[in-house]
Amino acid sequence: MMKQNKSRKPKQIQNFEYARRFVGKNVKIYMRNGEVLDAKVTGVSNYEIVVTVVKDNEIKNMLIFKHAVDYIEFEK
Amino acid sequence: MMKQNKSRKPKQIQNFEYARRFVGKNVKIYMRNGEVLDAKVTGVSNYEIVVTVVKDNEIKNMLIFKHAVDYIEFEK
Amino acid sequence: MMKQNKSRKPKQIQNFEYARRFVGKNVKIYMRNGEVLDAKVTGVSNYEIVVTVVKDNEIKNMLIFKHAVDYIEFEK
Amino acid sequence: MMKQNKSRKPKQIQNFEYARRFVGKNVKIYMRNGEVLDAKVTGVSNYEIVVTVVKDNEIKNMLIFKHAVDYIEFEK
Amino acid sequence: MMKQNKSRKPKQIQNFEYARRFVGKNVKIYMRNGEVLDAKVTGVSNYEIVVTVVKDNEIKNMLIFKHAVDYIEFEK
Amino acid sequence: MMKQNKSRKPKQIQNFEYARRFVGKNVKIYMRNGEVLDAKVTGVSNYEIVVTVVKDNEIKNMLIFKHAVDYIEFEK
Repeated sequence: MMKQNKSRKPKQIQNFEYARRFVGKNVKIYMRNGEVLDAKVTGVSNYEIVVTVVKDNEIKNMLIFKHAVDYIEFEK
Repeated sequence: MMKQNKSRKPKQIQNFEYARRFVGKNVKIYMRNGEVLDAKVTGVSNYEIVVTVVKDNEIKNMLIFKHAVDYIEFEK
Repeated sequence: MMKQNKSRKPKQIQNFEYARRFVGKNVKIYMRNGEVLDAKVTGVSNYEIVVTVVKDNEIKNMLIFKHAVDYIEFEK
Repeated sequence: MMKQNKSRKPKQIQNFEYARRFVGKNVKIYMRNGEVLDAKVTGVSNYEIVVTVVKDNEIKNMLIFKHAVDYIEFEK
Repeated sequence: MMKQNKSRKPKQIQNFEYARRFVGKNVKIYMRNGEVLDAKVTGVSNYEIVVTVVKDNEIKNMLIFKHAVDYIEFEK
Repeated sequence: MMKQNKSRKPKQIQNFEYARRFVGKNVKIYMRNGEVLDAKVTGVSNYEIVVTVVKDNEIKNMLIFKHAVDYIEFEK
């Protein structure tokens, strides 16, 4: 059976999220509906990613729910 | 490996949500089923967004579950 | 960046839900599978909405999971 | 705006679930994948519904995750 | 209205899960993507089911997320 | 009825996750949208898996949300 190593404390701090590091960065967001958004991240909360994107040659503000995102490509 | 910066406290306050700022504002809501709703937000809770929309030339009250929303376009 | 206004306490009380106000009311429930149910709400819990609907000319009792609902149209 | 009635305590006890009343009962379960199961409920937990169903003329035991259910028809 | 029986304490202990009983057992897992996996369960956690399956005549280790499972058929 | 064995303490420690063992390992990730990613895991948090993948002959960094993953194949 897959043993749980009870002595080994989970290294991860509770509620830590890598996504919070994207604030101020440009990323490529792959949505569950198939859309791909080139976005600048302006804010991240527990369930939301706030971005600006260029759409129809205009800058749009968007609040994206994380549950609607499959994955995010980013530069280190 | 992607190190967690344990000294750096997460800047985000717990349970903060950007969506709560939309109360009283007009937004464009993109639903998971493909619908796009031009809506006025009248209330926001942990899992719900209450809006009025014009549908079939009538003003309708709607309670939208956040899990059914992909993203929301808004004006700053 | 989208600043969080740390002084401004979130106005929303924890775990408050607008859906609880529907108990005893007739509403139109739009489901994720495309069904639209004209329903009378008889009970609401954290994850469930209990209703009666008329289906095949019979009154049916239904427990609907909120995760399966997109939005609910209601009269104020 | 949709006001929250802060004086009115939520009537619902935390973590109460109507589904727990189905234990021992026959219900009709409508699944997100379109299947409809005539089932006898033998156990309910926070995220699971355990049932027996007749399938291919055999009695089968099934553990159904609530997230995979749209709604349940039941007799009072 | 569907009354909640406030005196009747919920019989279910918090966070109890039936799925944890499958460790060491052979089960049939019906996935949301339509796949059906004949699997031996080697570990269960809050959100994960770890199994071995025979695939392309090889034994594979798989970590399955519960959210991707519709239901599990099991022998008592 | 499926009895809960109240004396038997759940063996699982709260919030334990098998996925955290994949850090530094190569795995095959099966996504809900049908994509299959050969990935090296560089970080895991409560809701995220950070990986590098080779895409269009380039190494890409990706933050994958667990809710978008069906299952992960791994070597012991």
